[in-house]
Amino acid sequence: MTDAEAPETHAADAPWDKISDLLADEDSGEIRAFILSLGADEQRRAVSRLEPVQRERLVQLLGPDDAADLLEHLVPQQAVEILEDLPPEVAADVVEELPEDVGGELLREMEDEESSAILNEIDDAEDTAAFKERLEYDPKSAGGLMVHHYLAFKEEEDIGSVLRRMGEEAADYDDQEAQYAYVVDSAGRLTGVLPVRDLVRTSWKRRVREVMIPSPLSVTTEASLQELGRLFDEKAFFGFPVVDPRGVLAGVVSRSTVRRALRDEQTATFLKLSGIISGEELRSMPFWSRCFRRLTWLGPNIILNLIAASVIAAFEGTLQAVIALAVFLPIVSDMSGCSGNQAVAVSIRELTLGVIRPRDFLRVAFKEGSVGIVNGFILGILLGAAAFLWKGNLFLGLVVAAALSLNTILSVLLGGLVPLGLKRAGVDPALASGPILTTCTDMCGFFLVLSLASACLAQLG
Amino acid sequence: MTDAEAPETHAADAPWDKISDLLADEDSGEIRAFILSLGADEQRRAVSRLEPVQRERLVQLLGPDDAADLLEHLVPQQAVEILEDLPPEVAADVVEELPEDVGGELLREMEDEESSAILNEIDDAEDTAAFKERLEYDPKSAGGLMVHHYLAFKEEEDIGSVLRRMGEEAADYDDQEAQYAYVVDSAGRLTGVLPVRDLVRTSWKRRVREVMIPSPLSVTTEASLQELGRLFDEKAFFGFPVVDPRGVLAGVVSRSTVRRALRDEQTATFLKLSGIISGEELRSMPFWSRCFRRLTWLGPNIILNLIAASVIAAFEGTLQAVIALAVFLPIVSDMSGCSGNQAVAVSIRELTLGVIRPRDFLRVAFKEGSVGIVNGFILGILLGAAAFLWKGNLFLGLVVAAALSLNTILSVLLGGLVPLGLKRAGVDPALASGPILTTCTDMCGFFLVLSLASACLAQLG
Repeated sequence: MTDAEAPETHAADAPWDKISDLLADEDSGEIRAFILSLGADEQRRAVSRLEPVQRERLVQLLGPDDAADLLEHLVPQQAVEILEDLPPEVAADVVEELPEDVGGELLREMEDEESSAILNEIDDAEDTAAFKERLEYDPKSAGGLMVHHYLAFKEEEDIGSVLRRMGEEAADYDDQEAQYAYVVDSAGRLTGVLPVRDLVRTSWKRRVREVMIPSPLSVTTEASLQELGRLFDEKAFFGFPVVDPRGVLAGVVSRSTVRRALRDEQTATFLKLSGIISGEELRSMPFWSRCFRRLTWLGPNIILNLIAASVIAAFEGTLQAVIALAVFLPIVSDMSGCSGNQAVAVSIRELTLGVIRPRDFLRVAFKEGSVGIVNGFILGILLGAAAFLWKGNLFLGLVVAAALSLNTILSVLLGGLVPLGLKRAGVDPALASGPILTTCTDMCGFFLVLSLASACLAQLG
Repeated sequence: MTDAEAPETHAADAPWDKISDLLADEDSGEIRAFILSLGADEQRRAVSRLEPVQRERLVQLLGPDDAADLLEHLVPQQAVEILEDLPPEVAADVVEELPEDVGGELLREMEDEESSAILNEIDDAEDTAAFKERLEYDPKSAGGLMVHHYLAFKEEEDIGSVLRRMGEEAADYDDQEAQYAYVVDSAGRLTGVLPVRDLVRTSWKRRVREVMIPSPLSVTTEASLQELGRLFDEKAFFGFPVVDPRGVLAGVVSRSTVRRALRDEQTATFLKLSGIISGEELRSMPFWSRCFRRLTWLGPNIILNLIAASVIAAFEGTLQAVIALAVFLPIVSDMSGCSGNQAVAVSIRELTLGVIRPRDFLRVAFKEGSVGIVNGFILGILLGAAAFLWKGNLFLGLVVAAALSLNTILSVLLGGLVPLGLKRAGVDPALASGPILTTCTDMCGFFLVLSLASACLAQLG
């Protein structure tokens, strides 16, 4: 059943109303039962409709364990908001109940001050160290995504001791985590893996070294999210061991963590392209923060727009003489923007897929230039014909046609190339491509229309 | 290592040049070794640079098995293009070597004519039937995503016979597929699951019915991609059995298929928002098809732009009197578009996440309206101040400020609501929101600037 067809089951008695009532009653047993009975979707919608003080009360009534379950189902930004609003010692209890990768992700997305306060309240020193180590790595690298929670044995141990320790510890691991154990030498360097299912068929006296699969596939802490995504696409493994530059086993990165990080990154790209500067916004976020974040992108845009429009001001005389041109300026600006944005989207997609690299300027220029010539020609003729039919002036049609054609070629070229240039320069193409493209093509479009018109002013009058 | 930092190792001797050379030599052994030595990224880039006739030759030299491996690493549209160019009997051999879900996805994305031709050439009647059944379902439902390749047993069988059949068949299944077997009654209805690892601890004489886990979680063939995504988020399973409306086991839908489908859908959303109408484009696609697809979106846009700009034409007298207004028309149009697109992006994201439903008009109107008022006010003051400083005319500043303020409120409201309305109407919000929004806010923006200016023409002169 798609959203569009969903019956309005909760129109009368929405889950958030019921939660509000239960919160007012302070009935923790009923609240817990009700929250856990909701689907993840309903939990997300319900939480987005509660007041901050209600959300805080909810977490406290649920207790750390159930609250962690709830947080796992929420959109990360919802979970971050809730944790930030809680007293640090309460938030710390919840974070300790979360899977390490989820907890680490949430801590990373918080303000530094808030995450430090929570880290200080975490009781388990090992957990704190693991979270801190994670925060030091690039969040989109294997180091920033790995967990420190895995089974590891020394080469020299015998299988009997391995089985004993597994019996004691395995309850701490879920099914997937416990399928492979990792083997290290005396210096902690990764030297093999042990498929756990093989252990039961092995003599207890043999050493790990004799049973393990040596030279396992591993990734370095520096491996990028993109590389990890491709590795998991190619191999059916649930996780890869992560080693530091000396080959020392540092953690394990799992398929589900990488999948989640890739999905979040794609969403952020899409939001940034539309001018949501931080790559995230939910309407449940605080009002002023939503206004401010959007303005952060709109403000510079208004300045860029003024710069572009100053070209029009420079040609006031021409415009005064042929007022009809004023009709075509916004059209040329908008159409060029549309053509250029198509090229931006394709470049960003091809970069993400690894089909092009940032240095492939020539290929992109050729591929986009040729489309720009054809589409510019066709769009120019269409708009020129409209101008001619409207005013009956052939020269007006020619000016408009030539301006849109040339400007389309330029904008498609720029749209294709700007993301590559930004990527090379280390700037996020999703965020900066649009404003750069629009400003350049607006200026150039206005200039083309008005300077061509100036050149044949006698025929346009 | 990120793309941006990658050294130019292949600048001199790019893999596609080497492949071209090897293709010219017709040396299938060397080609196979070289292709398989490349990373998925390099394979994608290499294939995107080969001529269609070279790609066809490459597949034939690789043979069906290795060609299927290569196709699995490519972007789906690349694989579709290659299969469409091959003689149907060659393409059919390759498709038979692909995993069922990958092959089914590619067949679906082809022209009907091409996929029928390939289906006719597939030798295995069961495979053909499975592909055809899949094509009948909504591609974004469990029916369209499920595979027909799984272990199933009857309730009344005894464990001994199960183990015998598994020994014969299990080699056909990979590790993940073979972790659970499904149990059906005499009418084929799903009644249980058998965790394969439990079988070895069971007496051979017991019946499946006594050993199975009864009433397993299942999804119907109608279950949407979104629902499946949420299920896999919540449960650590690798697959869910899919049943038809009568409860008959119809297939199995796997985590990796759902993940891939969700990723493709998100990419398509992002490309559609930027005016790539089919939700896909790679620069390796045929030139005219790229031009045509982009024009399909740009063409209607030029008409919408003309309609919007006709408002300007209706106010030529006002514009003639205050030519400075022509500078502000494109700015108001562009800024309103930007503000509205931010709201569109947030609505589409919230719809995807299930945080809002298409009927939540009031909530979105309230949340966006309030942001629109604040941001409209601030942006209006900024632009009005710029106008005042430029011309020294207070009324010009007021007209521009009021027009941008009001139009921002309208565009933010519309941007938030249009995706909900389109979703309710069953139209793809990613594709239609932008053009609808831009046309409305352009018309309204031009009208506001020019009608307000007309009202105080005496003060503006």
